[in-house]
Amino acid sequence: MALGHKGLDFETRPVLFTEIKDIGNGFSPTVPVLDDRGMMLRDSFDIALYLEENYPDRPSLFKGDGGKAHARFVESWCISFMQPRLLRLIVKDIYDRLDSADQPYFRGSREKFFGQTLEALHEGRDEKVGDFRDGLGPLRTMFGRQPFLGGNGPLFADYIIFAHFQWARVMSPLEILCPDDVVAHWFQCCLDLHFGMGREMPSASAG
Amino acid sequence: MALGHKGLDFETRPVLFTEIKDIGNGFSPTVPVLDDRGMMLRDSFDIALYLEENYPDRPSLFKGDGGKAHARFVESWCISFMQPRLLRLIVKDIYDRLDSADQPYFRGSREKFFGQTLEALHEGRDEKVGDFRDGLGPLRTMFGRQPFLGGNGPLFADYIIFAHFQWARVMSPLEILCPDDVVAHWFQCCLDLHFGMGREMPSASAG
Repeated sequence: MALGHKGLDFETRPVLFTEIKDIGNGFSPTVPVLDDRGMMLRDSFDIALYLEENYPDRPSLFKGDGGKAHARFVESWCISFMQPRLLRLIVKDIYDRLDSADQPYFRGSREKFFGQTLEALHEGRDEKVGDFRDGLGPLRTMFGRQPFLGGNGPLFADYIIFAHFQWARVMSPLEILCPDDVVAHWFQCCLDLHFGMGREMPSASAG
Repeated sequence: MALGHKGLDFETRPVLFTEIKDIGNGFSPTVPVLDDRGMMLRDSFDIALYLEENYPDRPSLFKGDGGKAHARFVESWCISFMQPRLLRLIVKDIYDRLDSADQPYFRGSREKFFGQTLEALHEGRDEKVGDFRDGLGPLRTMFGRQPFLGGNGPLFADYIIFAHFQWARVMSPLEILCPDDVVAHWFQCCLDLHFGMGREMPSASAG
């Protein structure tokens, strides 16, 4: 989304969890990794900062230093609130959709993290999704005032949160958001951005 | 804090809840209200935007349009997460410290909001303060990366959150934060800002 926002041409290469170590001889323990004509970068936020600095004539991802600083709070809210709660809801669905080469690694690491089996985490999730939705109050309150985290248009902070809902959309048929939620409306707007690039990834619930 | 950040001279006038209606013939249902040489403003965020626009040669409160937009997410996180949970913890202490003229209004409106008596809300708060602290993960994660919401220095977003902890500090002897929490460290740094203007307000726990 950050590359789309900057209007840059790019090619994506999906990798298995167990292949990440082969990118650039172990350049990064995680994805995404960006190879910008030989310049290698890792970590979504660092990649966005790099794009902002190196493509200053393209639309801004942060609109100033205040935007950069405060986007870190949005990132932190995702890391400490949204990501673990969302993962808990969809972790079994992710496992089911993984390449079999990745499944043992994924089950082992995620069950260790949660201290529960994937099957136990999956149980009773229909009630837990309500708690997750309740916790989205900060987004809901803000969308009552402006259409994007970036104000009238999207900035990188929108993509930080969008990425989590997109992850759920692609990996799980669970209805994470009620369709009449303002957060769902914002998500649909994000899917339309940059020539609908988000929508090109098929949804797990599309049969 | 926003006036201090801009380095502007000002005079504060405390008012009772029941006196707010007398400011400028009912200009605002809430405080703060700013009278800038006859220009009347209400609402903290709108006041900060006004100061930013009208005193552009002073230190910035937002550092750009991205900062303005994302500060709305910080404000929304406070409104929907922090403020109601904090109020629940300290509401009885606030009541006890109010001018007697304000007490009936305060008890009536707050008990209606929570659907419980102030005394019932007060009970068991020592356990509830743990839940409140747990919910500060987004701040804690962020302070592992940068000292202020504004990055290396404070911006208006810091003052939005600071105001809530300051409110608790002034109105309640309850220890809201563990002293070794990075959030407590940030709060102490904020109390030192602008010649220690926050520290001039006496703490409720200072005996």
